[in-house]
Amino acid sequence: MGVVERDIDDLPKNPANYTALTPLGFLERAALVHPTRNSLIHGSVVYTWHQTYRRCRQLASALTNRGATFGTTVAVIAPNIPAMYESHFGVPMSGAVLNAVNIRLNAQTIAFLLGHSQAAVIMVDQDFYPLAEEALKIITDKTKGKFKPPLMIVIADENCDQKSLQYALERGAIEYEKFLETGDPEFAWKPPEDEWHSITLGYTSGTTASPKGVVLHHRGAYLMALSNAVIWGMKEGAVYLWTLPMFHCNGWCFTWTLAALCGTSICLRQVTAKNVYSAIANLGVTHFCAAPVVLNTIVNAPKAEAILPLPRVVHVMTAGAAPPPSLLSAMSQQGFRVAHTYGLSETYGPSTICAWKPEWDSLPPEEQARLNARQGVPYVALEGLNVINTQNMKPVPSDGKTVGEIVFRGNVVMKGYLKNPKANEEAFADGWFHSGDLGVKHPDGYIEIKDRSKDIIISGGENISSVEVENVLYQHPAIFDVSVVARPDERWGESPCAFVTLKPGMDASNQNRLAEDIMKFGRSKMPAYWVPKSVIFGPLPKTATGKIQKHLLRVKAKEMGPVKKSRL
Amino acid sequence: MGVVERDIDDLPKNPANYTALTPLGFLERAALVHPTRNSLIHGSVVYTWHQTYRRCRQLASALTNRGATFGTTVAVIAPNIPAMYESHFGVPMSGAVLNAVNIRLNAQTIAFLLGHSQAAVIMVDQDFYPLAEEALKIITDKTKGKFKPPLMIVIADENCDQKSLQYALERGAIEYEKFLETGDPEFAWKPPEDEWHSITLGYTSGTTASPKGVVLHHRGAYLMALSNAVIWGMKEGAVYLWTLPMFHCNGWCFTWTLAALCGTSICLRQVTAKNVYSAIANLGVTHFCAAPVVLNTIVNAPKAEAILPLPRVVHVMTAGAAPPPSLLSAMSQQGFRVAHTYGLSETYGPSTICAWKPEWDSLPPEEQARLNARQGVPYVALEGLNVINTQNMKPVPSDGKTVGEIVFRGNVVMKGYLKNPKANEEAFADGWFHSGDLGVKHPDGYIEIKDRSKDIIISGGENISSVEVENVLYQHPAIFDVSVVARPDERWGESPCAFVTLKPGMDASNQNRLAEDIMKFGRSKMPAYWVPKSVIFGPLPKTATGKIQKHLLRVKAKEMGPVKKSRL
Repeated sequence: MGVVERDIDDLPKNPANYTALTPLGFLERAALVHPTRNSLIHGSVVYTWHQTYRRCRQLASALTNRGATFGTTVAVIAPNIPAMYESHFGVPMSGAVLNAVNIRLNAQTIAFLLGHSQAAVIMVDQDFYPLAEEALKIITDKTKGKFKPPLMIVIADENCDQKSLQYALERGAIEYEKFLETGDPEFAWKPPEDEWHSITLGYTSGTTASPKGVVLHHRGAYLMALSNAVIWGMKEGAVYLWTLPMFHCNGWCFTWTLAALCGTSICLRQVTAKNVYSAIANLGVTHFCAAPVVLNTIVNAPKAEAILPLPRVVHVMTAGAAPPPSLLSAMSQQGFRVAHTYGLSETYGPSTICAWKPEWDSLPPEEQARLNARQGVPYVALEGLNVINTQNMKPVPSDGKTVGEIVFRGNVVMKGYLKNPKANEEAFADGWFHSGDLGVKHPDGYIEIKDRSKDIIISGGENISSVEVENVLYQHPAIFDVSVVARPDERWGESPCAFVTLKPGMDASNQNRLAEDIMKFGRSKMPAYWVPKSVIFGPLPKTATGKIQKHLLRVKAKEMGPVKKSRL
Repeated sequence: MGVVERDIDDLPKNPANYTALTPLGFLERAALVHPTRNSLIHGSVVYTWHQTYRRCRQLASALTNRGATFGTTVAVIAPNIPAMYESHFGVPMSGAVLNAVNIRLNAQTIAFLLGHSQAAVIMVDQDFYPLAEEALKIITDKTKGKFKPPLMIVIADENCDQKSLQYALERGAIEYEKFLETGDPEFAWKPPEDEWHSITLGYTSGTTASPKGVVLHHRGAYLMALSNAVIWGMKEGAVYLWTLPMFHCNGWCFTWTLAALCGTSICLRQVTAKNVYSAIANLGVTHFCAAPVVLNTIVNAPKAEAILPLPRVVHVMTAGAAPPPSLLSAMSQQGFRVAHTYGLSETYGPSTICAWKPEWDSLPPEEQARLNARQGVPYVALEGLNVINTQNMKPVPSDGKTVGEIVFRGNVVMKGYLKNPKANEEAFADGWFHSGDLGVKHPDGYIEIKDRSKDIIISGGENISSVEVENVLYQHPAIFDVSVVARPDERWGESPCAFVTLKPGMDASNQNRLAEDIMKFGRSKMPAYWVPKSVIFGPLPKTATGKIQKHLLRVKAKEMGPVKKSRL
C-alpha cells in the first residue's frame, strides 16, 4: 500500500476557506435573516434583531472611539437587562474582553476584580452605581491612585427609581444611550484575527481564596453556543427567559446561542415565581435555565402566583448543584421538562448532560428522578470527560461506587485563569482540567457527583457524601431547602449537620420535635452514620447564582462546638 | 484608556483545553450515550450505536493493519448501505481519506478518479464489482502496470443476487465482514493531529473537463454536521432516510450529523416513491434530503404507492437545483415541510438555506412557494455569502435584478481541489470561493440563483435565465420535468429550447399540439422572447444525483441546427 507521511495534498488555509470561529457572526446573521423578529424584550422595551445588531455596533464603535481595543477589559455590573445582553456582542466587537461582574458581590471583592482585570470601562446599572463607586474608591485608595480611573457608563432602566440615575449622572457618568449615540450603527467590526483570542473574563466565587479570573476564547464560545442548541434540541426562534444571570458564565453561553437561533430573549430584572409564570403565560417562553434553588421556588409557588397548567411544554435546564430527585419529580408533574446538566465557569457553563434514555420512560417517577439527578455524559462539544483516581491519574472503574475526581478535556475548557500560573498548573495537570468535584462513574457510563472534595464529611473514617444525605432529606415533606455539612464530633471526628429551611406554611414552633422527626425520617432511608446528628432551622446563605454557601455553614457548624459523646 | 497590543494574558493551548475538531468523536459519544439505540437499519440488518462504534473501529484497525495511514486514500463504490456509512468513520479513524465514488459514473471516469487519488483500497458493493474491475483494468493498462493494485474488498448485501458476490470472491476480493474480523473492535483510534487534515475527497461531476477532486477537512465536517442540526432544528434521536446518496458530498455531511444526534439512519438501496412512503409509514422517518427530481417522483407517485396522510410532519431538505414553485407547493400540500437549501460539493453540501419567515405564513401558496424557491441566506456555519460583480469584485446592489456571481467564504468551504493549483487559483480568487453560479440579491438579503453562467441564454443581446423559464413552464399541468437550454437561432443568435417530460398518463400522441399549447401557456406568463421557440419531448439525461445534464441537451439543441428566421 502506497504510504506517504503527509496529507493527500498541500492545501493551505486562505481567506476564502478559513475564518476564526466567533459567536459574533451569529448576530450579523440574525439581523440578516430575521431583522424584524424580536431579539430582546424587557418590560415595555422591545428590540428587533435589526436594532440589536445596530446597537451592538454602536457600542463597539463608541468603545473604540474611546480607545478600547485588543487587550482592554470592559466590566459590566448589571442584572439581566438589554445592555447586559448587548455587551456580550458590542464589547468583543471592539476587540475588548467582557467581564460581566456578579452583582451580589460586595464592594471589597468587586474592587479586587477591577484591579485584577485592569478594567478600563465600567458599564453599570443605575441601581448598582453606588456599589461600583465604593469598589472604585477601595481600589483607588489601595493603589494610592495608581489605578487609572475607568470610563464610567451608567445604564438607565425605567424600572428603577429616577434618583439613582440622577446620582450617577451627577458624579459624571455618561448615560448608556447617550454613549451609544457617539458610536456608528454601521461600524465595520472585524472578527478576531485568531479564534484563540479572549472574549470574556469571569471570576469564580472564590469562597476560600481570592477569586480566580476564568478567561474564555471565541472558539469555545462559538462551539458552546451551537452545542447548547444541539444538546437541548432548541429550534430556530426559541423564546428564552433570562432567569439565569448573564454574569454567571455569560449565561452559560446562551447569550450567543440565542443569536445563532435568531431567538428572543426575555429579560428579567428580578427572578420571582410570579415573574416566571407570567412570562411563560404571556410571552411565549419555551426555555429557561436556573439553579435548583430557583426551581424549588417556582415549583413551590403559592397558588395565586402559579399560572397552571402551562400553555406549552417548557424546557428547563438546571445545573449548579445536583437537584434533589423530589424536585425533578415535582417539576415534571407541573409540565416542565427538566434537562439536568453540569459544568463550571471553567467549562463555559454546563458541559455534561444527563441525557434522557427512552427506556427510562416506563420507570416509576422516583426511579426516573434518581437517574436524571446524575451529571451524565459529555456535551457534544466536550471531547473528554472522566472520573479519575487522583493518585495515579487513571480512570476509576465504572462501578457507580469508586469515588474519584471529575475531569474535563476539550474545546469548551477555558484558556486558563488570568495571571495565575500556579492555579493553571494545578488545574491543567496531566492533560485534564481538574474540577475539584468528586464523583463516580456508573456502569452505563454516566457520571455522578458525590461531592466537592471539601464537602465530604468524614465520620469515623468513613466518607459521607453530603449531597446524598441532602437528596434523602429533600424527600421529607416539610423541607424546602437543606444543606448538610460536617460538624466536629467528639466521638466520630465529624458528623453530618443539616441546615434546613421549611416550606411556607409549615409550623416551626416546635423545632425539637421537627428535628427529631427529620432524623427519624433519615434513619428509615439511609445508613445510621449518614443521619445528621444536628438539625438547624433558618434561611440558608446563598451566592448570587443560588448556590448555598457551604463554607459559611461549615464555619457556623464549627462555632457550635463539637457534638458531645453523650448525644450518641 | 490603558491599551496594550496583546491579549489580556498569554494563555496557550494545552492538551486539556484544545482538541482538533473532528466529527469522529460524535460516534464515540453516541456509543456512550445511546448504546442500544438503532444506528442503522437496512432491511433486516439492524445495528445499534454500540455495534456501529465497534464495527467502525474494526474497519479502522483492519485498514491500519494493511498499511492505511495518514496520506492513504480509500475509495468506496457503493449505494446507501451500512458499509458506506461505516466508511465515513472507519476510514478517517485510520488516518486515511475517504473517497466515496459516484456509482453511476462509467468505468472510464472511475479509472480517472482511482488514478488521480492513488486509491490504495477499494471497498465495492458486490453488484458494482464488475464496474470497479473494468475501471481498474483501464487505469492499469493506461499506466502500463505502474498503478499499484489496490486492496479489493467486496461488500456483500443480502438484497443482491448471490452470483455477483461469488464473482468478486473468485477474483480474489476479500469480503467486507471477513475483513472487519481482522480488525480490533476496541482499536484505540486517535483524532487527527490537526483539524485541517483531510477527511474526505469527492469528485465533481466534471461535465466539461476532467472531474475535480474536492478535498474536505475534519474542522469543516465537524462544523457542517452541527450546523445541519441547528439550521434544520433536528432533535436528538432524529430518524433520517437515506434518499440522498452518501457518495454525494458525504450525504451533505448528514452522515456525521446523525452521529452527533445519536439518530437512526434508514438505508435505501433504491430510491423509489414506494420505498420512501413505506419507510415513512413503518420506520418512523422524520427527515430526508433529496434533489427536486426525487421530490417530483414522490409527489407524483401513483395512489397505490403513496401512503397518505403522512403519520407525522416529515422534514425534507432539497437542493441541487432550484425547485420549481409548483413542486414546493405540492409537497407542502401533502404535509412535507420543505427546507430549500443550496450549496456545492465545495461548500460541504448545502450551506445556504431559504430560511422561512413567519410573515410568509399568511401569503397565498404560490407566493410562499416563489419566496421559498430562492437560495436564501447563509448557514450558521458559513461566515460569508455574497453576489458580486465579477468585473470589479464588488457586491451587486440588493435589488433582485442585478446579476452577479454567487461567492462563499468561511469554514465550510473546501481545502481546495486535489493536485490542481490552477483550478484553486481561480476558485479562490480575491478571498472568495467562486461558485460559477449566477444570481441576484433581493432587498431582503436573500440570494436567488438565476443560472449557471454557462446556462444563460443570450437572445438578441438579452440575457434569459433558463431557470426562470423552467419555473414558469413547471406550472403547466402536463409537464413533469423540463429543462431549457440555448438553441442556435438565425435571427436572435440563440433562443430558448425546452426539453420536456410529461406527467404519467398524459396523452403524448399529438406532440405538435402539445408544444403549441406549452408555448401559448408561456406567452401568457412571461416576456415573449423568453418563450421557447422549440419544445422537444422525451426523457431527460440526468446525473447520479438527479441533476439534469444540460450540457448534453445543449449538444442536442445544437445538433438540431438553428431556428430558421421564417419560424419567427
